[in-house]
Amino acid sequence: MPARIPDPALFPKDAIQEAYNAILSENAGAALQYSVSEGYKPLRQWLVGHMASLGVECTIDNIIITTGSQQALDYLGKLFISPGDTILTTWPTYLGALQAFNAYEPRYDRLTPEGGNTTPAAYMQSAEKAGGQVKLAYLTADFSNPTGETIGRSERAKLIELAHELDIPLIEDAAYRSLRFNGENAPSMLALDIEREGEIDKTRVIYSGSFSKTLTPGLRVGWVCAAKPIISKLVLIKQAADLHSPTINQMVIHHVAKRHFDQQVSKACDSYRLRRDHMLQALQNYMPEGVTWTKPEGGMFVWMTLPEHMDGADLLAKSIKEIQVAFVPGSAFFADGSGKNTIRLNYSLPNAEAIDTGMARLGTLIKNQLAV
Amino acid sequence: MPARIPDPALFPKDAIQEAYNAILSENAGAALQYSVSEGYKPLRQWLVGHMASLGVECTIDNIIITTGSQQALDYLGKLFISPGDTILTTWPTYLGALQAFNAYEPRYDRLTPEGGNTTPAAYMQSAEKAGGQVKLAYLTADFSNPTGETIGRSERAKLIELAHELDIPLIEDAAYRSLRFNGENAPSMLALDIEREGEIDKTRVIYSGSFSKTLTPGLRVGWVCAAKPIISKLVLIKQAADLHSPTINQMVIHHVAKRHFDQQVSKACDSYRLRRDHMLQALQNYMPEGVTWTKPEGGMFVWMTLPEHMDGADLLAKSIKEIQVAFVPGSAFFADGSGKNTIRLNYSLPNAEAIDTGMARLGTLIKNQLAV
Repeated sequence: MPARIPDPALFPKDAIQEAYNAILSENAGAALQYSVSEGYKPLRQWLVGHMASLGVECTIDNIIITTGSQQALDYLGKLFISPGDTILTTWPTYLGALQAFNAYEPRYDRLTPEGGNTTPAAYMQSAEKAGGQVKLAYLTADFSNPTGETIGRSERAKLIELAHELDIPLIEDAAYRSLRFNGENAPSMLALDIEREGEIDKTRVIYSGSFSKTLTPGLRVGWVCAAKPIISKLVLIKQAADLHSPTINQMVIHHVAKRHFDQQVSKACDSYRLRRDHMLQALQNYMPEGVTWTKPEGGMFVWMTLPEHMDGADLLAKSIKEIQVAFVPGSAFFADGSGKNTIRLNYSLPNAEAIDTGMARLGTLIKNQLAV
Repeated sequence: MPARIPDPALFPKDAIQEAYNAILSENAGAALQYSVSEGYKPLRQWLVGHMASLGVECTIDNIIITTGSQQALDYLGKLFISPGDTILTTWPTYLGALQAFNAYEPRYDRLTPEGGNTTPAAYMQSAEKAGGQVKLAYLTADFSNPTGETIGRSERAKLIELAHELDIPLIEDAAYRSLRFNGENAPSMLALDIEREGEIDKTRVIYSGSFSKTLTPGLRVGWVCAAKPIISKLVLIKQAADLHSPTINQMVIHHVAKRHFDQQVSKACDSYRLRRDHMLQALQNYMPEGVTWTKPEGGMFVWMTLPEHMDGADLLAKSIKEIQVAFVPGSAFFADGSGKNTIRLNYSLPNAEAIDTGMARLGTLIKNQLAV
């Protein structure tokens, strides 16, 4: 089960209820009937405008609606991966992406946004040695789950260059992109690739978006924006796999997004920014030396690195038992199971007091462990 | 795009609107939040009762909710099929099943419910010769899409016996099961397998159900009922593939099913029975000699066999152009593309007058073709 991470107090419940009533009063026949695999046209049209606000010029033929962005990862795995092929991703990466891709039996190689010594040729050699080819790169460029970190503009350009050299698609998971609290937006990787190639239909970046963190996850509405040939293949895959995402859900999301998206995003940012600030303050107040953590400019997570010999899973077991504080051990987010001395903290649900109490207790627990 | 087949006039629009309002007033936090991959517990509990009414004794651990029954077929393909494996199915069969399974690159062998000369050993030999194994059988036992026909009790028992001899799962697609207009219900194949094995967790029949033909397709809610070990694997597949089906959709379907399922089914049956009667009468009135058709006891389809030299696809092209009558050429429903002289007629949408006019014109068109 996914963590219950967005704060339900932020869901635009009244706007959603209003949307259901309007749609069922005016358009029930269509809302409750079968519909097309590519998705509800007015929602795709709204997304053309949304993508334009990110610097991505596209048409509705560049957009497919999915049942949450998790489904996009499943379909992209189905489209690109054969057993033994290689996927490049960051270490750590989104656990749900590893789970979605694992169904297609890939191996993983480590993507290093900061460059480093690995060359395209080295990636290709490793993949061939393992009996497949490099077929896909996957990453979250903004406020990633689990680290909360953002990839800078020049690193984005380098990663796109790498994808071109390897001749592979690159999935830009943008689930948290709208939740920026401060600092400057880096251009979306798809926008950078359009700049490079001149138009979206020549690009290789596949933008995966979601309404789960901005409006509501319970309606399961996400989208993919990419070159037409990729979208056409995804439409065929979706038709075979579930016909289409629920019709009324797409109409409701369109109704609400059209009227309240910006306002909803700014409400969520205000709320999560405050909690992020509380979290960072509490960490500074209570964590002993030898513990470090990220300072996210958006999203829902802080990533903590414990002293090298400390195990996040052991710490969780003690934490649950002794101080009733929960977090996720970091090694689950590493394709090779490394990262044992890391943990993922989440600040999007607890209030200021709970954050302060929790981190004070966790700081003491870690100190006690260090003293053992 | 799937045909817009259930009559939208039958959708329980008011009950659905009432359900959304009740749920969003009383339980919005849960309705709009992430939830569990196996599905909304009260809906699974309601389905335990529904399955009991079909003679299937089970617990909620035997049930997973899917985003329509099409998704169940995709996940079952993912679970059971490797490239080159063999799936047994009827000739013709549900086109959407072929599409869902094709993603996993199987071959197909013909299932003959009436028995015939094919032995388990012959099926196994063909599969091995093709480089794989027989991994799955799939069929619609009640009012199948496309033929409208139902498999009798003794044939069901034989098919279950065959699945046991081959040691493979058998998918019972029950999308149309509730829509019986007359005649006697045959036991569900899952019920027969429970009778044979003593309890559901020892069975190999996988029952795939849907609310699309009884309540509404636009919410995309279906379910699978099967032995626990199969359900557990489907839950893991679903978690990786889309986390869970939309929360609020499951709550609404539960709310409506609990209050109106039986009444809704009998309303749909009354409406479709009348149209089936009109259709069969019109066929008798207008079709020339040499044309035969099925006499369904439920569902939405009549299957027509044209004279052997006549091609359903050619007839459709002429029909659209000359008489504005649409149907589906039958060969799409055959895994090997045969059945060229068959077509699928659908009576669930047109009214009596449209059925009469349409069949009169089609009869004349076929007569004229025969005269050429």
